Amino acid sequence: MLTLFYAPTACSLASHIALEEAQADFEARRVDFAAGEQRSPDYLAINPKGRVPALVTPRGVLTETPAILAFIAQSFPEARLAPLDDPFAFAEVQAFNSYLCSTVHVNHAHRVRGARWADDADAIAAMQRKVQENMTACFELIEERMLRGPWVMGEAYSVADPYLFTIARWLPGDDVDIARFPGVRGHYARMEARPAVQRALAASAAA
Amino acid sequence: MLTLFYAPTACSLASHIALEEAQADFEARRVDFAAGEQRSPDYLAINPKGRVPALVTPRGVLTETPAILAFIAQSFPEARLAPLDDPFAFAEVQAFNSYLCSTVHVNHAHRVRGARWADDADAIAAMQRKVQENMTACFELIEERMLRGPWVMGEAYSVADPYLFTIARWLPGDDVDIARFPGVRGHYARMEARPAVQRALAASAAA
Repeated sequence: MLTLFYAPTACSLASHIALEEAQADFEARRVDFAAGEQRSPDYLAINPKGRVPALVTPRGVLTETPAILAFIAQSFPEARLAPLDDPFAFAEVQAFNSYLCSTVHVNHAHRVRGARWADDADAIAAMQRKVQENMTACFELIEERMLRGPWVMGEAYSVADPYLFTIARWLPGDDVDIARFPGVRGHYARMEARPAVQRALAASAAA
Repeated sequence: MLTLFYAPTACSLASHIALEEAQADFEARRVDFAAGEQRSPDYLAINPKGRVPALVTPRGVLTETPAILAFIAQSFPEARLAPLDDPFAFAEVQAFNSYLCSTVHVNHAHRVRGARWADDADAIAAMQRKVQENMTACFELIEERMLRGPWVMGEAYSVADPYLFTIARWLPGDDVDIARFPGVRGHYARMEARPAVQRALAASAAA
């Protein structure tokens, strides 16, 4: 039994979808960000970083989306969520996910989490003004150089797909029109049609 | 044959050390950041992100430190650089590396790469003022909650170790005294004593 701690619009959606794709036996528990639950002693005992996702397993707690996604893929090999027997192809999945985590998510975070990197209100406003430009540049690179289609890695669906879908959902809030990126838009529509995605979205909205 | 594109003080050192630990057949090629070589058409053809590391393999190019580190561990299993047969333990290594990549490295980057996230000089200066505080908080978490000792994951050396060592080398430049963190300092000294680390440092300084 696994427990995923999540927030509805956070990057934890990627892990949520992957667990649904794997048909894993798991419980999803919402962390109430509006109430600051992520900074509560109870939650910090689970994840001292005060963030989501956190995946509680019988062996202990895992954090960080790329690590959790690879763990799900390796733990449920029958779901075929990554090329587990091919180190190079597996590394390509991981490189994509690492780019989303360390560059794209970070660029997005400068819109609503600028206080992480500066105390000054004017500086935080200056960061917000650059988010649209940075997210556009990231998705140009994804569109032109990374997304193979129909799935991120080509014909085979992988844990890179729910992660791209999750971050693409942030584009409207970052004032980036997904229609500029027909490959990404097509990928987004294919994701929305998957039952596992629909289950994860419904569960996170209802909880 | 593998080719690692690197810069001496960049995070590519982690991959460089891992290749030395694995006794891989590889060539290290320096990218001259001072001359802007990372933005040259020749280099962008290798890595369109314009960053290091990039690892050229017979199958194609890999980027992103966590992905390259896992690739090296999986490609050279005899070097025992990760718990390859244990998805949970492997995920713990990956979670550590993902934290370094997406949080610690990003915090550090706000000192010299602030222009990525704001155009305004005052905002960039405001980011620089917060780097010491953020890096200190990261290393407190690493010291108290993550570093098991003697290696990151405990008794077994892994690809998490060269990555921690690489980022710990940035602490003086970020005005953080490593002596505040005795566990990290001890780890740093153990790393410096490893022949593979010495080879990687000598090669990157000489090239």
